[in-house]
Parts: sequence; structure tokens; C-alpha cells
Amino acid sequence: MTTYVAPVRDMRFVIEELADISAVRGLAAFEEITPDLVEAVLEEGSRLAQEVLAPLNKIGDLQGSKIVDGQVQVADGFSDAYAKFVEGGWPGMKFKPEIGGQGLPSLVAGALEEMWQSANMAFALCPMLTQGAIDAIEFHGTEEQKAVYLEKMVSGEWTGTMNLTEAQAGSDLAAVRTRAVREGDSYLITGQKVFITWGDHDVAENVVHLVLARTPEAPEGVKGISLFIVPKYLPGPDGAPGERNDVHPISVEHKLGIHASPTCVMGFGDKGGAIGYLVGDEGEGLVYMFTMMNRARLAVGMQGISIADRAYQQARQYARDRIQGSAAGHPGRVSIIHHPDVRRMLMTMKASVEAMRAVAYTTVASIDIAENTDDADTRSRHHARVDLMTPIVKGWCTELAQEVASLGVQIHGGMGYMEETGAAQHFRDARVTTIYEGTTGIQALDLVGRKTLRDGGRAQRALLEEMGEVSTELASFPDLADVKLCLDSGIDAHRRALEWLLQSGTEDVHAAGSVAFDLLMLMGTVCGGWQMVRAALVAQRRLGEDQGYGELYRTKLVTARFYLKHLMPRAQAYLQALQAGSEETMALPEEQF
Amino acid sequence: MTTYVAPVRDMRFVIEELADISAVRGLAAFEEITPDLVEAVLEEGSRLAQEVLAPLNKIGDLQGSKIVDGQVQVADGFSDAYAKFVEGGWPGMKFKPEIGGQGLPSLVAGALEEMWQSANMAFALCPMLTQGAIDAIEFHGTEEQKAVYLEKMVSGEWTGTMNLTEAQAGSDLAAVRTRAVREGDSYLITGQKVFITWGDHDVAENVVHLVLARTPEAPEGVKGISLFIVPKYLPGPDGAPGERNDVHPISVEHKLGIHASPTCVMGFGDKGGAIGYLVGDEGEGLVYMFTMMNRARLAVGMQGISIADRAYQQARQYARDRIQGSAAGHPGRVSIIHHPDVRRMLMTMKASVEAMRAVAYTTVASIDIAENTDDADTRSRHHARVDLMTPIVKGWCTELAQEVASLGVQIHGGMGYMEETGAAQHFRDARVTTIYEGTTGIQALDLVGRKTLRDGGRAQRALLEEMGEVSTELASFPDLADVKLCLDSGIDAHRRALEWLLQSGTEDVHAAGSVAFDLLMLMGTVCGGWQMVRAALVAQRRLGEDQGYGELYRTKLVTARFYLKHLMPRAQAYLQALQAGSEETMALPEEQF
Repeated sequence: MTTYVAPVRDMRFVIEELADISAVRGLAAFEEITPDLVEAVLEEGSRLAQEVLAPLNKIGDLQGSKIVDGQVQVADGFSDAYAKFVEGGWPGMKFKPEIGGQGLPSLVAGALEEMWQSANMAFALCPMLTQGAIDAIEFHGTEEQKAVYLEKMVSGEWTGTMNLTEAQAGSDLAAVRTRAVREGDSYLITGQKVFITWGDHDVAENVVHLVLARTPEAPEGVKGISLFIVPKYLPGPDGAPGERNDVHPISVEHKLGIHASPTCVMGFGDKGGAIGYLVGDEGEGLVYMFTMMNRARLAVGMQGISIADRAYQQARQYARDRIQGSAAGHPGRVSIIHHPDVRRMLMTMKASVEAMRAVAYTTVASIDIAENTDDADTRSRHHARVDLMTPIVKGWCTELAQEVASLGVQIHGGMGYMEETGAAQHFRDARVTTIYEGTTGIQALDLVGRKTLRDGGRAQRALLEEMGEVSTELASFPDLADVKLCLDSGIDAHRRALEWLLQSGTEDVHAAGSVAFDLLMLMGTVCGGWQMVRAALVAQRRLGEDQGYGELYRTKLVTARFYLKHLMPRAQAYLQALQAGSEETMALPEEQF
Repeated sequence: MTTYVAPVRDMRFVIEELADISAVRGLAAFEEITPDLVEAVLEEGSRLAQEVLAPLNKIGDLQGSKIVDGQVQVADGFSDAYAKFVEGGWPGMKFKPEIGGQGLPSLVAGALEEMWQSANMAFALCPMLTQGAIDAIEFHGTEEQKAVYLEKMVSGEWTGTMNLTEAQAGSDLAAVRTRAVREGDSYLITGQKVFITWGDHDVAENVVHLVLARTPEAPEGVKGISLFIVPKYLPGPDGAPGERNDVHPISVEHKLGIHASPTCVMGFGDKGGAIGYLVGDEGEGLVYMFTMMNRARLAVGMQGISIADRAYQQARQYARDRIQGSAAGHPGRVSIIHHPDVRRMLMTMKASVEAMRAVAYTTVASIDIAENTDDADTRSRHHARVDLMTPIVKGWCTELAQEVASLGVQIHGGMGYMEETGAAQHFRDARVTTIYEGTTGIQALDLVGRKTLRDGGRAQRALLEEMGEVSTELASFPDLADVKLCLDSGIDAHRRALEWLLQSGTEDVHAAGSVAFDLLMLMGTVCGGWQMVRAALVAQRRLGEDQGYGELYRTKLVTARFYLKHLMPRAQAYLQALQAGSEETMALPEEQF
């Protein structure tokens, strides 16, 4: 397995040059976030990722986790690593100082999260899910709940989970059956949840479950579902974990990847009922869950980038080391990085990772602005952008991550199929990202429905306009004329797709669902190109200045060109598939499959 | 895990309607191959696949194989299954009666092989490799060698292996170091081979290794390599396995998939030298190996289809059974097959499998004709076609199989990531197919080099012409006008790609290598469309006749249309990437990755 090296150079390029950190810095909350501070934080974080988390990635895969005496036991070294993670203050990086956080912009904290996920995806799922639980309590909990839970969770002393799925309720949460019966100030929760990430473990002193359950006499469907805090240990009057609550891990799943992340079946109330505390109002559970989920969706999109980058780094190392065959212009046998087809794969991986990173980080910067600006217009513009981009970051980045992780295996040849190499682990780990926190299909439905048809394409048009401005800017750079052609072709595909959808999406009841995936992939592809063009423009300008970063900018220009010429053409294929509509997709009777 | 059902109906459609079995039947060797016989053989084979091989697929994955007392021990039930396989005469289906075979055309035997591979890919690798070894001995061995080995191997009593790869010699076989020193009538072989499929086992009484090794004083590179027969047990004067030869399994690899197929590191000559018998002439080893390899490449391409079909069948079953959410026009909760995005995935899988099957089977029919016709023109035409299509069947079918197997996981949602479901096994098993018997990159280089540039595009033009004829035929069916547009666009992309390659492939030393993958995928995509159009033409004509197969033909029309409208557009994306050439692919210095 290759050592992981955090791509701090490219992260800083994206943060400083593409993701508008200057606008973020202009917000009162973040005025102290200087470039030096960003650099220092990323460098410090990269050491933890590289030296503590990454070395455990393989042992976690090999050992997985198991239930011993009714409690999940994680792989060797994970408890110590988690202790170091907490000790360094890393869990609280992006939370507000008022609740014990470090107050970093999500943009910078996001880069750190990319590192944790690259270094050890199974490990990083634990703080990732905890963040979702923190958000739910922070935004919807009572003052008392905040006082009891937030500081402990932000510090990482306690971890959190999202208990949504049940065997019969996956994408369709309306089918949740777990019951919550009021008893005094709390509720008694009974039922079973599945696929609970880090549902139980021994690395922190408490686990705070956020649980969807149905109250008696609640209406059918989504309106009958409420959200509850169900701690593993009930906090005592002093705030410390007290009595053991009636929630237990029943089993740990045997999964394709992320073996070290315990995915639990959780039983609530086997001994009469787990004590749960209502969050917000009854019947609002799904609304609150979406608070957690939208953040978690972006986080999973970032995971796609992380695992893709890890796979890329591993393949790059192998391509440099592995001697095989000869190449034009090189005497003797050569390392395979000299073979054009290996380069095609490496460039595809590199360009994909950098494009995804730029798309995701710019979206995250919009969160910082939307949540912290005083200007209503700016807020609503950035909110709309985040809403629109969330399914794209989640769906497109994780789908592209499959391709990148698969290329990582391919570059290794036969060795890629051997588990000892490590490439296969990244491939296996990556596979979950298009599934959890809403499959790609669910993201795509969100994109066509709530994010496009509902506002009549308004947020889409704002995005198209912004991309058009970049194309206009490009016109002043004759050296980039080839790039402009590719960008314009992508933007045109996006525009046509939008027009088609706005027209047919209302005429044909199956149209939106049938073409949603193609629209999502089309938009991801085009947004990737848009951001790579923005990167190329920065690089082209900076090349003239003498900053000692000539190689960085020259490389960025090559990578951007590769993306635009080799990957952007896919947008046309998605467009044509989309324009074919639902006819053949829906035509066959069930028995003819 | 879902039960496997051999797709006999579609296999027969392709064999009878698309792959020109009437031409095959017109050959003296195959005049007795009536439609009834084909049906009977496929039905009989399907029982073995469904009832004996498929039920072992999961246990093989779970148990894998291990070395016990210096010999590989395979998973429970595999020895019995192999005995039944031999008892039924299945190993010899496509071999000539003169060497003990059943004399079936490869076209029909190929359909059987598709079944074995779908039912249990790890198992089916054993007869697949044996076939390659049989081919090498049949085409290049001495009469004595044929007498000693062929009948035993054709019957399946003995199995065969291909010992090519060494740690430092993968795609680059010129680097082989295993030594062969002449001693009397035989040679002493010493060295180590890796990645040897079914390199050792206890399911048959002998294992016949075909081994590449270097004789002393042989020239460097490929010309110094010879091919040897190295049996595990030396055949005695009575032909029965006698003395144990000095070749042993050293270890069994821990792989991502195909766990039940023992992938061995083989040691030759640890006790002084394994006895080997030269095949053909010294220095011709690689040429002979290509005899085995070309067949094996087609067989791996077929494996892609097999595992894709298995994944499709599994996903189809899940989509019919899993209740989740609601759908327009259906009261209450529905099975997920009613959701448009699930249908998009299922249709993509179905259309891909059927297109791949048609492309592969028509290629295999050309083998039958080329090898058995008396007409020199026909022979050379079909030979050229097989040569051209081999890298496409191998490369494109296995690449597309990755997508199909991944969609299979995706349709299962969270359950797809759980190993118990079985979808993940198909995904893991499928992953090897783009790697062994020459990676996709190696296939693509074969396609652009030996198969295109070497003959100045002649075989390519013959293919284009044949596709053009189908387009012309299509013009008489106004109902298929939309399909014609898509086909023409694909053919046009193929023509432009060819022109670009013939022009730039000679001007730029890196061009051919940089664009090879895109050409291969483009051609696979277009050939798939071409065959689906041929299928649609048959269906359109037959719909008018009253044959009781109306549903079959209507379904084929829908599936063909889906392929042409949703998948064919990818050809344009490949074309544009190809036309971008090598510039950005080759631009970065190694350290800038």
C-alpha cells in the first residue's frame, strides 16, 4: 500500500483561487482566516492524516470490526487514533466557538475532511456522522439538549449516529416503523434500525443516536415521523454518561468495503424501551433529518473525491515504480508511466480528482457565505446554489470516483486484483459512496424535482449565466481557443438539457425520473469543465507573473485541457441519452425483462 | 443469491438469426447441427449450469482455495461438480471428433461456455484454460504429444494451464526468465511463474502446464522463448499419470474475486528441475502462445458477457421483489422495477448484455467458417474479421461488464454493498476480466497496431462497408428511421476515428497508444449498435409473421431502440476524445503527476 500524501498544494490552489476564500474572509465570522492560518492548519492536519490515520487503513480492512460481549470492537489502533484525533481538536474544526468549535470556515474544514477520508475512509465515517448529529441538535434541539450534548460531541468525546433506515424503509423513509411512546418528559423507543454507521464502538465514551420513529396515532407517511435523541448512556445530572440505555448492536454487517467502519443492526427497546428525547416538534422528523442529510450528502460527495485521490496516488506510485516494456524515445525497459495508455488513465484520474475538488469546494464556500453573510440577496443566491449543487456533488463525484478507483486497479494490472496491493481496497471502499446518504438515483430525482422543476429552472439559469461569463472571459485568451470550444459545447448541452426537461418534464409523467441520472452526470461533467477552465484562466494569468510556481500553473493548464478535451465530450452523450426521454426506458412489461 | 437461468431464448435468437448459423451448417464439418440439436444441447447444458454449477458459486467465494500438504485444495463441492462436468462430456464439446471431441461449432459451444461462466466463473476458468492448452498442443505439438495428452485433456480427465507470467514479466513477456536446459529428449525447467489460474488442484488426476521458458544461449527478447509441456505427473508408458514432476504450487493468491479459482505461484525445479517437453521449435514459444491466447482472449470477452448477464439477472430479481416507494399509475407501494431510474439501469444492463452477446457470437461464427470452409476467399475474409474483432470482444465486453456489474450493485441499494446478497461477488468477480489475458490497454494496442495500421485499415473498411449495408437496409423501414439516425451517427464516428488514426497514427509516435482505448470502446459501442439493429430488422420482419414469438420480437425492438438511443451516443464522446490525440496525455513530466 502506498503512503498517502495530502494534496495541500492543489487544495490551497482551489481554496485561494477558485473557491472565493476572499469573500469568505470578508465575513465577520472568518476575518481571521488568513492564508498563513489556512496553510498552517492544512499542514498540521496532513500530518495526522498521513502519520496516524493512513497507516491504519489496511489493518482496518483486514480486521474489520466484530461484536464482543454485546459491544462492537473495532480494529487495532483505531481507538488510539481516535484519541489523537480528539486531542488535536480536529472534530470541532468547523463548528462555531459558541459550542466549543474552532470556527473554521467549512471550506477549510472541508479540505481537512478530504484528508481524513483519503487517509482512512472507514475511520473518517465516525466524525462525519457525528457532524450530522451535531447539526440536527444545534439547529433543532432545545437549549437543554444543546447544553447536554453539543460540547461533548463537538469535542469528539461523544460520537453521533444517524438512525434512519429500517429493513423495509430505505430510500422510502415514510415506511419507518420504529415506535416512540411518550412517557413523562421522554419517550420509549422500540424497533430495529439497519445500516447504522459506527452504530456502536468502544473508541468514545458515549454514542448519541439520532433516531427516526413514529409516535402512536401519528398520521401515516412522512408526517408521522419524529426525531429523537437516544444516547447509549443516559447523561447523568453532572453531564457524564450514566445509566446504560436500552439500545444495543445486534450484529455487524459483512460488507464489500469500509470493513473497519462498524455498520450495525441496532435494536431499540429489547428490554422494554430505550429512552429517547424528542428533537423539536413531533411529526417534523424528516424535515430535521434533511438538515443532517444535506450536509452528509455533501460530505459523501467529498468522500468520492477523497477515495479517488487515494486511488490516484496509489496508481501513480505503481506507474512510476513498475518496470515493463519499452517506450518511444526511452532506451531500455521503462516504468509504465511512460506508456501512453497508462498516462491516459493517470491523466483521467488526475483531471477528474481536480475537477471534482474544485466543484465541491466552491459549493462548500457558498455554504460559508450563505450561513454567515448579512446580505439577504447574497444569502439567497448562495443558498440556491448550494441546494442545486448538493445532489451534483454527491451524485457526480461518487459516480466518477467509481471510474477513478477502477482505473486505479487497472493501472496495477494483475497486481491490482491481488488484495495485498491495496488498490482493490480503494475500489471496494469507493463502491458504497454512490449508495449511502441517498443513491445516485435519489440525488438525481432531487436535482430534477426539487432543484429544477420546482423553481422552473431559475437556479439552473443562474448557473448557466455564470458559466457563460467564464466563456466570455475566455474569449480574450487566444491560446485557450480550443478550451473555449469545449466549454461552450458543454454549456450548450446543459442548456438544451434544461430546456428539454422544463418542456417534457411536465408533459410526460415518467420523463423526469427517466432522464434524471443523465442530467445529473451531464451537469457534473460540465461544472467540472467550468471549474477547470477557471483554473486554467488563473494559471494562464499567473504564468506571466514570476512567483516560482511556474510548474504548478503549467501543469494545471495541461490538466484543464485534458479534462476539456477528453472528458467534457461525455456531456453530449448524456444529452442525447436524455433527449431520448422515457419511451424505451418504460416500455417493457415487467415480465419481459 | 439469485438462481441463474440460462438465457437460452436469446442465445438461440442470436445463433439462428444473427450469427449466420446457416452458413456454419453449410460447412461439411457441421452439416448435422440442426436447430433441434442446438436446442437440445443448450437445454441440457443449461441444466448443468443451473443445477450443478450455479449453486456452488457462493460457497466457492466464501471458502476460496488453500494449500494443504503441498497441494491446492478447492472449495466444497467443486470436485463433484467437475466430475459431473466430465461425465456429461462437456469439456470436449467444441473439439474435433478425431481428438475425442463432440465436434460442435464454436458458436454453439460458445453459448455453453457463456452458461458455465455465468453460473460459476471461478469454476469455468478451469476448462477455459484447459482449452487454451489443448489448442497449443493440437496446433503445435508432435504426433506423440497429441497422442499422449489430447484425448485426456479433451475428455477433461486432465486439465491444462498457461504458465506465462513471471513477477517481472507481465504484459512484457520478452522479460521471461524461467530456464529450460536440454537433457536428452526433454528439458529441465527451473523458475517461478505467477498468476497461474488453476495451477494446481485435486479435481482431476493430472495438470498439464504449458510453460514459457528460455533456453541457454537463446537470443534476448521474444525470440529466445520456447514453449514446453510440463505435466504435474509424468505420463507412464501406459499413458496413466506416473512419477511426480518437480513442479509445485508455492502459494495461492488472496484476490478481490474469483476466490474459488486457485491463482497459484508455481515453482519449477526446486528439486533440480521439472521435466518439460518442447512444443514445436525452440524460439517459437511466443508465437505458439498467441494461438492459445487469441482463443483465450475471446473466451475472456465472453466471460464479460457471462458475468454481466448474471449481474443483470440478480438485479432484475431484486427489482421485482423489493418494495419501496410509490410510482405514477400504481396504487400503494410498488416494487422498485416500477421506478424509472431503476428501469434505466435494468435496460442499460439488458441492452448491453444482448449487444455484447450478438457481437461476440457473430465473431465466434466467423471462427467456425474460417477454420472449416474450403473457399480461400471466405476463409481470409472471416480470418480478418476474427483478428479485428478479437481485441474488441475482449476489451469492450469486459469494460462494459464492469459497468453492468456495478449497476447490479447499485440497483440493490444498501443491500448491494452487503456480501450476503451476492451482487457484490459478481462485481468483484467481473473486475478481473479487463486485466487477465491482456489488459484492455494491451487489447487496444493490438487493435490499433496489428489490426489497423498494419493493413492500412483494410479490415476496418470491410467492417464499415458491412455496417453501411445494414444502414441501407434500414432505409426501407420508415418505423425505424430514428434507429437509422443513431446507427449512421455511430458508423460515421467509426469512419472518422479510422481516418484520424490512419493519418495521425503514423505522424505522431504517441498517437496510436494515446487513442487506442477510445478507438476500442468506440468500435465496441458501434458494433453493438450494428448488431442490435440487425436484431431489430429481424424482429420487425418477424412481427408480421405469426409465430407465437410476438413478445420476444417486440421486446427486442424496444431493447435495440434503447441501445441505439441511450448507449450509441457514447461513440461521439469516444471520437472527440480520440481526436484530441496525444498532446495533453503525454505532456506532463513524470514528477508533475
